[in-house]
Amino acid sequence: MVALNDDERIDYLLAEDHMHIIQSSEVFSFSLDAVLLAHFAYVPIKKGHILDLCTGNGVIPLLLSRRTNASIVGVEIQTRLADMAKRSVELNNLDNRLTMIHGDLKEMKTELGHSTFDVVTCNPPYFPTPAETEHNDNPHLTAARHEVYCTLEDVVKACKLHVRPGGKVAMVHRPDRLVDIIFLFRQYRIEPKRVRFVYPKYGREANMLLIEGTRDGKEGLTILPPLYIYHADNTYTKEAEGIIYGK
Amino acid sequence: MVALNDDERIDYLLAEDHMHIIQSSEVFSFSLDAVLLAHFAYVPIKKGHILDLCTGNGVIPLLLSRRTNASIVGVEIQTRLADMAKRSVELNNLDNRLTMIHGDLKEMKTELGHSTFDVVTCNPPYFPTPAETEHNDNPHLTAARHEVYCTLEDVVKACKLHVRPGGKVAMVHRPDRLVDIIFLFRQYRIEPKRVRFVYPKYGREANMLLIEGTRDGKEGLTILPPLYIYHADNTYTKEAEGIIYGK
Repeated sequence: MVALNDDERIDYLLAEDHMHIIQSSEVFSFSLDAVLLAHFAYVPIKKGHILDLCTGNGVIPLLLSRRTNASIVGVEIQTRLADMAKRSVELNNLDNRLTMIHGDLKEMKTELGHSTFDVVTCNPPYFPTPAETEHNDNPHLTAARHEVYCTLEDVVKACKLHVRPGGKVAMVHRPDRLVDIIFLFRQYRIEPKRVRFVYPKYGREANMLLIEGTRDGKEGLTILPPLYIYHADNTYTKEAEGIIYGK
Repeated sequence: MVALNDDERIDYLLAEDHMHIIQSSEVFSFSLDAVLLAHFAYVPIKKGHILDLCTGNGVIPLLLSRRTNASIVGVEIQTRLADMAKRSVELNNLDNRLTMIHGDLKEMKTELGHSTFDVVTCNPPYFPTPAETEHNDNPHLTAARHEVYCTLEDVVKACKLHVRPGGKVAMVHRPDRLVDIIFLFRQYRIEPKRVRFVYPKYGREANMLLIEGTRDGKEGLTILPPLYIYHADNTYTKEAEGIIYGK
């Protein structure tokens, strides 16, 4: 039996699924972004090593474990979140394949080694650190949303350090940071290979982007078909439903 | 009366339009790409100065003249094409606003000055220069499609040289060069602000991209709604039809 703190609850990981995850609206609950990244990222099916940076409550490793038999390591800097992630791994009896580490992605070289992972995924904080006054009053939520503990460059640098040559780096972010992401990917020799833009509805601007690059990869980017989340009547599109319900 | 060479014909510029353009299938005929760029690019309405690099037979200046009263300069390195462009300007009685120059975009500093244009547009050659044997047998078509006379970096450098601070640079290209374009735009301080991907049909990968940046602009990119060209039954979508027929 896994212990829960007062503000925590156990949610289904995906609708109509048998996996569970410990969440807390006071600390962190996973969002659509993580679900889309876990669906978008390439993963080796039978074996290999996957690293998830900024793992939060471990949602991406948990989701990826449904698609692969590879070992998956999650790294989270916030104590409470890393602890929730560890307990969710227990809860799903995945201790043999999933490892959650409480640590700083900028300082994992000794523990994780360099060039050791086939795939690195990351759902990083989206917003540059604002003035103190603009921070969310809740420090957990602030750290998950703003670049308090790590900048985008820290994240890309860590991806490059830990992924093997030829390995893949997959990230979800906001479209307004596409220029920064592409610039940093290339600077750190992760060549962008696949991009998919996510649009809330037909006719709207994109509000999310999924990007995958290959370390030391050849040039040549594919822009995948758009992913629409909602129909005009606010019901999920068939494709979004398939991803969200894990079909 | 404007003289025509044997292989030349006079086409309507847009369907149901009163403008004409001199074309030649042996030398150059404009494509959808140019029409989409001329529709996508921001232009000042009442006055200003616009520059179109790699202007070919002058299709983009001719199309833009319908949307603006600004003066428009086109630059084309191929003698035959620059000559066709000049005669098309005459044909449409636009000599007072449109000027076609036979010249090399890498060497226009003296003639055009620096930082003098509000907007610079360009539909550059799409493909890096291949081995001699892979070139099209027709040198005109090879030069229009391959980076024979100028590389993408030459083009971006020229855009940066001639656009004023705060002015806009708009380009059409292939999505597989997005990484290069974004990298070069930022290197030459043209901050990408708007991108629109063009998809041949729903569910397919993008096959064209429209990008606009601002010289010395602030960071922050918008990914516009996708533009679909064809329905599943190969008829134009309503939006594509509106652009192509100039409605």
